[in-house]
Amino acid sequence: MVQATQFRGSPSGHIVQTTAELPNIQPDEVLVKVTDSGLCGSDLHFLSVPMVLGHEGIGIVEQIGSACSRLKVGDRVGWGPILSTCDACDMCMTGREAYCPKVKMYGVEDFDIHGSICSHAVRKEQWLFQIPDSMSSADAAPLMCGGGTVWVPLVEQCKPYERIGIVGIGGLGHLAIQFAAKMGCDVIVFSSTEEKRDEALNLGANEFYATKGVSDYATLGVPKPIDRLLITSSAKFNLGLFYPILARKASIFPLSVDSGDLTAPYMPTIARGISIVGSCVSSRYPQNKMMDFAARHKIHSIVEQYPMTLEGVTHAVDRLQSGKIRYRGVISWNSLHDQ
Amino acid sequence: MVQATQFRGSPSGHIVQTTAELPNIQPDEVLVKVTDSGLCGSDLHFLSVPMVLGHEGIGIVEQIGSACSRLKVGDRVGWGPILSTCDACDMCMTGREAYCPKVKMYGVEDFDIHGSICSHAVRKEQWLFQIPDSMSSADAAPLMCGGGTVWVPLVEQCKPYERIGIVGIGGLGHLAIQFAAKMGCDVIVFSSTEEKRDEALNLGANEFYATKGVSDYATLGVPKPIDRLLITSSAKFNLGLFYPILARKASIFPLSVDSGDLTAPYMPTIARGISIVGSCVSSRYPQNKMMDFAARHKIHSIVEQYPMTLEGVTHAVDRLQSGKIRYRGVISWNSLHDQ
Repeated sequence: MVQATQFRGSPSGHIVQTTAELPNIQPDEVLVKVTDSGLCGSDLHFLSVPMVLGHEGIGIVEQIGSACSRLKVGDRVGWGPILSTCDACDMCMTGREAYCPKVKMYGVEDFDIHGSICSHAVRKEQWLFQIPDSMSSADAAPLMCGGGTVWVPLVEQCKPYERIGIVGIGGLGHLAIQFAAKMGCDVIVFSSTEEKRDEALNLGANEFYATKGVSDYATLGVPKPIDRLLITSSAKFNLGLFYPILARKASIFPLSVDSGDLTAPYMPTIARGISIVGSCVSSRYPQNKMMDFAARHKIHSIVEQYPMTLEGVTHAVDRLQSGKIRYRGVISWNSLHDQ
Repeated sequence: MVQATQFRGSPSGHIVQTTAELPNIQPDEVLVKVTDSGLCGSDLHFLSVPMVLGHEGIGIVEQIGSACSRLKVGDRVGWGPILSTCDACDMCMTGREAYCPKVKMYGVEDFDIHGSICSHAVRKEQWLFQIPDSMSSADAAPLMCGGGTVWVPLVEQCKPYERIGIVGIGGLGHLAIQFAAKMGCDVIVFSSTEEKRDEALNLGANEFYATKGVSDYATLGVPKPIDRLLITSSAKFNLGLFYPILARKASIFPLSVDSGDLTAPYMPTIARGISIVGSCVSSRYPQNKMMDFAARHKIHSIVEQYPMTLEGVTHAVDRLQSGKIRYRGVISWNSLHDQ
């Protein structure tokens, strides 16, 4: 029996620290000793739910179930929001299992044994990823959800000779810029203010536009149209805002977690052949390829590290809520020793 | 000099008959003696514009410009809404020239020499299509705009083993059913009432659902999810209406001409990986392949034929406006002799 220290949401919206006895693992499960957890914008949706928070986990395999065959004790692994998929549906059989209709996701079930802001987690081996040796855990954690989310549209639908727009520089955006630049794309960044211009260019962007207060994007001075547009900030405006700077047959990928409706102007969408493409987190094959790619290209997550204490977690969540984090919070057991 | 008889819109919205002297053709132009014209829903948007109406033309080449090389006098040709494209942009160079930013379209310029509800038209050779000998002109006319519009998403994005939903049975829908069925797809038709069930099944549909008054499509009884959905009727509702019957990673193609906005529910679009794909009329390569395919599979347009007289054109437009046409109006000089 393992006693796990866990950080959970609560009805008041405050983080609480709890201790729970984890159940014995099932044959297809793995017990992981958590070392680090990324903090993703979508975690904010669960602060009032009494579940263990976090879905960008990194840790060391401590025990494996009798039916596990791929991992061994001592392996460094990571995981994102997906707990398991059915392995039998059309999506699972075509490598698109992130869309499995029977997917089990973070925040929906098994509140006590999943999550990553904790000392130990029980996960199915199926959705644990090995971390390349050369990659630090702080670099790896933000890749488990945020990295995979931007990687999929980039590798599936963007060409190295295309102009790729990245809207918003945060946990997702700062990784998207690096991936797209290393893929050889022409990277154009849109951010509200000039504040992040230098960092965007340093990460690999070729052009930067501040959009705050601009109602006609034709006036931004974008010299050539954008072929693919990844929106990593909220997309709760009419997507027609971007149409003046999009190429014919352009694609738009709204990637943030949000409620409400998507809207776009009808005829310009049809006549210009614009696609609005829903895309969520990565399936396993692209996730593994992303990890290799990130290690090979020495892509670094820009993170703020916090200790895995009630104070540390609460402080990180506050920073995230106020939009101050540059660009991903990572909560680590190790940083307790660093301080 | 050719004196052309023409049928035009007018400020009052009534059709008027005019006579005009056509200019001499330019080196890259062709003079066509019109035999037939389809009548498309989008023609209704131009009834109050003083232009020659019609953009699904069929005719016989009467004269070719000095720079033309492909057509010869006597050829039977057809044309759709595109007058010309630039032949130099990214879209033109990749066979997607229907999206050329410099496209010249029906209803925008040269009101006196284009159009197809007339006796003679002047067209660039570039956008004239040869009609297969085995295909009647009445079958061919509706393919020039409506046929191309449904053909492109079918051949570009639909697989023969997929379930293809066709929403609406009209000029576009009745051709989409036939194309998809001949491509081997599993064809599912949605129409407001039961009225067209038998015809849909005869055209090749495997399933038919009447949707009038149904607010939750989960109750329609569709046994397996739809992979690709072509909306040939108005799409001015929240596309989420269809989500209960769509597969993961499904695509939606709104194909009608309309104003206003497209809307879809944000998170289900992202989480299920739904794509909303803008697609307009066919470029030249797929248009030629469609003509071959339609001839080889003996695909017939179901048309109501009207004589090319003021009375005939007016009657056809009235039938179209009141939604009574089954399924495409074709206005023909020949039918004057038939009567």
